Amino acid sequence: MDLKLRKAVRSDMKSVLHLIKELATFENEPDAVDITEEILIKDGFGEFPAFETIVAELNDEIVGIALFYQRYSTWKGKSIHLEDLIVQENHRGKGIGNALYTQVLKYAHKNNYKRVAWEVLDWNTVAIDFYKSTGATIFEEWRVAHMDEKSLIEFVKNN
Amino acid sequence: MDLKLRKAVRSDMKSVLHLIKELATFENEPDAVDITEEILIKDGFGEFPAFETIVAELNDEIVGIALFYQRYSTWKGKSIHLEDLIVQENHRGKGIGNALYTQVLKYAHKNNYKRVAWEVLDWNTVAIDFYKSTGATIFEEWRVAHMDEKSLIEFVKNN
Repeated sequence: MDLKLRKAVRSDMKSVLHLIKELATFENEPDAVDITEEILIKDGFGEFPAFETIVAELNDEIVGIALFYQRYSTWKGKSIHLEDLIVQENHRGKGIGNALYTQVLKYAHKNNYKRVAWEVLDWNTVAIDFYKSTGATIFEEWRVAHMDEKSLIEFVKNN
Repeated sequence: MDLKLRKAVRSDMKSVLHLIKELATFENEPDAVDITEEILIKDGFGEFPAFETIVAELNDEIVGIALFYQRYSTWKGKSIHLEDLIVQENHRGKGIGNALYTQVLKYAHKNNYKRVAWEVLDWNTVAIDFYKSTGATIFEEWRVAHMDEKSLIEFVKNN
C-alpha cells in the first residue's frame, strides 16, 4: 500500500470537498454542505488561512483528509480543533484514518499546543472506542450549541 | 445601572482571568486553569490575536466577559466560537450575560459569519432554556472529545 500524507495545496480542494460531502451523507445531512471548492481555496490559503488540511494519498488518489485549525482554551491556551477526519468509504479499515489522526496529534505536539479537541456522534461507538484507546476523553455532560445563519439573522433583526 | 460593553485591552486581562477562574469553580474544576495573565496578554493581542474579548463594565468595574475566536465549518465556512460567557456571580440576573451574548451575535452577523457555536453543560438548564429561546440549537447527539496535554505527550511518545 503506497500511502502518502502531505499538506494540502489549492488544487486538492476539489477532492477535499468531495470527501466533506461524503461525510455529510454519512451523518444524515447530505444537503447541509453550503461550502464550495472556491470558498475552500479562498479561506484555506493565502496570508491568513482559516484552516489547514492534511491529505492522505493512496496510489496518487486522495482518499482521506484531516482538516483542523487553532482554537483557544481559557484554561490551557492555544489548542487545535480537528474539524474533520474523513476516509473514503471503500478505503476504510486500512489504517488511513489512524495515520491522519496520528499526524494531527504529532503536529499539535510539535507546535506546542496544549489540547486537541474534536466532536463525535454518540452513536459512532467504533470511533469513540478508538479515540478512548488513544488516551482521549469523551465528555458526556457537554452539549454543542449552534446559532445557524437563519437564526442569527432573525436574532439580530429583533435585538 | 451604568453598563458599558467594550473591546478588551491588555490591562483588562487581570480581571478577565479572575472571571475565568470563577467560571472554572462553578464548573467544579477550580484547579484546571493553567493560563496566566501574561499568557492571555501574549495570545490575545498583537498581530495575530488568538481570541477577542468583550468586557462588560458596571460602574467602571469589569463584571462580565465574552471571549470568542474564529472557527471553520466545512459545511458553512467561517464561524465564531463563543468560548466563555461569564458574569460575576453577584451581578447575575441583571441582563449582563444577555447583553454580552447579543453583542457577540451582532459582531458575528456584521462580519458575515455563518454560524456561532459554543458548548454548554447538560445540567445547566437555565442556560440551555435561554439559548433555545434565542433560536439556538442544542445538539443532543454530539459529544466533545479532548486529547489533553498529558495524553498527547504519551500518545506521541508511543506512535
